[in-house]
Amino acid sequence: MSGEKKIITISREFGSGGRLIGKRLAEKLDIPYYDKELLDRIAEESGFCKEMIEGAEMKAKNSFLYSLASAMGTGEAGPESLSLNERFFLAQFDVIKKIADEGSCVIVGRCADYILRDVPEATNVFIYAEEEDKIKRAVEDYGVPADAVKKLMKDTDKARANYYSYHTGRKWGEPVNYHIAIDSGYIEIEDIVDLIIKYTDVKLYK
Amino acid sequence: MSGEKKIITISREFGSGGRLIGKRLAEKLDIPYYDKELLDRIAEESGFCKEMIEGAEMKAKNSFLYSLASAMGTGEAGPESLSLNERFFLAQFDVIKKIADEGSCVIVGRCADYILRDVPEATNVFIYAEEEDKIKRAVEDYGVPADAVKKLMKDTDKARANYYSYHTGRKWGEPVNYHIAIDSGYIEIEDIVDLIIKYTDVKLYK
Repeated sequence: MSGEKKIITISREFGSGGRLIGKRLAEKLDIPYYDKELLDRIAEESGFCKEMIEGAEMKAKNSFLYSLASAMGTGEAGPESLSLNERFFLAQFDVIKKIADEGSCVIVGRCADYILRDVPEATNVFIYAEEEDKIKRAVEDYGVPADAVKKLMKDTDKARANYYSYHTGRKWGEPVNYHIAIDSGYIEIEDIVDLIIKYTDVKLYK
Repeated sequence: MSGEKKIITISREFGSGGRLIGKRLAEKLDIPYYDKELLDRIAEESGFCKEMIEGAEMKAKNSFLYSLASAMGTGEAGPESLSLNERFFLAQFDVIKKIADEGSCVIVGRCADYILRDVPEATNVFIYAEEEDKIKRAVEDYGVPADAVKKLMKDTDKARANYYSYHTGRKWGEPVNYHIAIDSGYIEIEDIVDLIIKYTDVKLYK
């Protein structure tokens, strides 16, 4: 689908460099990039405060408590009876749909692969790596202290998996949820970017 | 690693077209292809009969019985005390190592990704697809009767997963075991082949 609208969603393990890949993809294709930028849009269009949105995923660290909080409404009738987690996810859902309607873009995280699963122009990418490669990147490139990296990596990916699973009913990181999955430890970032662009050029509409 | 030795292992879900992709890869790169051909080599070099080797993977349909049979030796001392399953896996292990030593090749299935995990020239690929795409391919291209396809697909993939898990201690189909994973339902076979070749051209030695 060369020359057509390209929507690329990036799901990524902590330390895999997925965010950087998303950024470079957007730069190279000269299309908007949404990561933290997404939070601004959601805040703007939903009225939720940015800090609350930012923390939404990490609140899913404990899947039981997250499910419980999500299941509990406010006690009022109508859409108000949805929990804060649910209402926030719906706001995010609407904004991601709208962004994809507007034109080509790269979206990192936030269940965008699931939200855009029926959009033919969407290419869903999963970026992962072996543990030692992720640790190296997190310490050297992200500046995470060496003694904290393993726990932060585990907690972050666990929260992502729980959040994804709760809202989509699917398993985060399972190949079938993505069109292509790449280990970032065996190939330069620029080469991954080129490979993904090549993929989007030949992807079939379905 | 363009121009260098290229070893490509293909792991694949039933109905994903992985075998065809492996065959086309070997043709396009003009390197040997091992699938059923591997059985001949194993039979030749180990003395096991081909039919027994052919059925080895499917015997893992029931993981408990497979583990039990694998754990039970013949009662004799020395290497003879290994079960038939274990001895067969070791023979397969040796032949795959030897084939990879000989030069570039494509190997389909048989835990080759695990067996060659420390070979820098090896690129491990996982091919999968959504259920409806796999059913369509199995019925239309492989000629599997429509009323038998779901069960055959489930049994075959379960046996592959059990066999892989028993012999490698890893989870079959989990991204981290492969360098790249591609859904064959959204891209033409020839484009997948080109994408994999492009990947092997830029893969880093590690």
